[in-house]
Amino acid sequence: MTNFDDLMKRRVTEIKSIIKNYLPEEEGYQRTLLEAVDYSMLVGGKKLRPLLMQQTYVMFGGTSKAIGPFLAAIEMIHTHSLIHDDLPALDNDEYRRGKKTTHAVYGEAMAILAGDALLNLAYETAAKAFAEDPGNPDVARAFTILAHKTGIYGMLGGQSVDVENAGKPLTKEQLLFIYSLKTGALIEASMMIGAVLAGASDEEAEQLEQAARCVGMAFQIQDDILDVTGREEDLGKPINSDERNQKTTYVTVRGLEAAREDVKKYSEEAVRLLGEMPYENEFLTELILHLIDRTI
Amino acid sequence: MTNFDDLMKRRVTEIKSIIKNYLPEEEGYQRTLLEAVDYSMLVGGKKLRPLLMQQTYVMFGGTSKAIGPFLAAIEMIHTHSLIHDDLPALDNDEYRRGKKTTHAVYGEAMAILAGDALLNLAYETAAKAFAEDPGNPDVARAFTILAHKTGIYGMLGGQSVDVENAGKPLTKEQLLFIYSLKTGALIEASMMIGAVLAGASDEEAEQLEQAARCVGMAFQIQDDILDVTGREEDLGKPINSDERNQKTTYVTVRGLEAAREDVKKYSEEAVRLLGEMPYENEFLTELILHLIDRTI
Repeated sequence: MTNFDDLMKRRVTEIKSIIKNYLPEEEGYQRTLLEAVDYSMLVGGKKLRPLLMQQTYVMFGGTSKAIGPFLAAIEMIHTHSLIHDDLPALDNDEYRRGKKTTHAVYGEAMAILAGDALLNLAYETAAKAFAEDPGNPDVARAFTILAHKTGIYGMLGGQSVDVENAGKPLTKEQLLFIYSLKTGALIEASMMIGAVLAGASDEEAEQLEQAARCVGMAFQIQDDILDVTGREEDLGKPINSDERNQKTTYVTVRGLEAAREDVKKYSEEAVRLLGEMPYENEFLTELILHLIDRTI
Repeated sequence: MTNFDDLMKRRVTEIKSIIKNYLPEEEGYQRTLLEAVDYSMLVGGKKLRPLLMQQTYVMFGGTSKAIGPFLAAIEMIHTHSLIHDDLPALDNDEYRRGKKTTHAVYGEAMAILAGDALLNLAYETAAKAFAEDPGNPDVARAFTILAHKTGIYGMLGGQSVDVENAGKPLTKEQLLFIYSLKTGALIEASMMIGAVLAGASDEEAEQLEQAARCVGMAFQIQDDILDVTGREEDLGKPINSDERNQKTTYVTVRGLEAAREDVKKYSEEAVRLLGEMPYENEFLTELILHLIDRTI
């Protein structure tokens, strides 16, 4: 195991333990909802978004306690989107990362409510940052970024265009719009919030938005590549699903080789933009470059 | 038309115009989502929650501009809950207030996303209050109340218990739990936020929470009564639906006469609690007493 892999493993474990602190106790009449929420949050995942947030925060020398609630909140929003994506009315997936999806375990109605509950819990949790760091105006800035990047002009907007065009061929322009919102927006939020909570200026946050946009594109294109070249046992889901569903992907639009080059190009551009900033974080740089080689 | 009815009509019109200012423009690739969001928000409704918020705010002498975003946010959260309640996997309702429900018009997948988008838009909109009134710590307090009362320990928690027990007989204790969260929590949030944004103390907010709890109970019991005694053309939905669905309601548990008495009792208790406060608002008192006589 390389140094990076080792460090990565330790950091993901740390993130998981921070997030767990913000999950609700499974008690009371609404116990089933609480179980569905915790089940969905604990089934796994790479924790990429809180990791990017935390490392950007470290890069900018952050010291505020307000970061903890936001690390949990971004993962809750991501998990909310997975629960609702998997529903019968949307992608109708029974498995994710090798585990049963929320509606497959708890039924459709409870999965809809668990998704709602996690989206709301993200804001309820982020609001705890007001108490962690009273009077810090950066908390309100972080809040505004989180809500904007999640909503109609962010993740949910991208998701709606994806859903509306399911089964139809997409233009490259539509595809890039979906990728930049559905996948990119939360990654942008992660890095921007990490910076803002560490006291970064609006200009710095905008430059990070650019870098994060490249990270998001690299990440999503690599997802499309893995659907063609990955191993089912690594991914925990069937491969070639895009082809079976006649889905337009970056690989169908640009071909496999060009897609691989573009992942490299976007990752390097992200690293270049980060390098222009007056701070550095070697681990963050490695993490981003690592996205090119990932197999899961 | 009485003075009160006239005033009520003017105030609801005013609230509607404030809310409209915070609704998104229907443009861009995500246009269908935007249409579904606007459709759901504009189909009607009594605007009871923003009205209670605004009038509590007036009662406490509020002057901050931060109230506008919260008036819109509470109605967005309420509308989010209606969209998801009506879904095939939950209540499966095709009509509400005489109009087609969101999934009946836009399909199930888009209705799920429109509900998500409105829940998120509520927080995105409420976050605008930070800019309307920078540095006002009451905005963070209002935010915390909004998220808490909407979530697992509020509206969504109540909704989950209701859904989980659909078709089963409920104990009176379970029924009151569902009512106090599913209906009560947002009414509590409305009055508490109105007070807090006007600078009320935590103790005052707690007393208002008690009053609002009574308002919520009166409102929900009256709903059960109207399902038995109301006119379909007034309600815009079929009556006797609870009996057909063998649903436990306050009327089935306590009988019609006792239910009527309890609506009166809860309304008067709410008014009494408000009367103990060192401020007054005659319109708010009338509004609450009016809940007893409402036919819609």
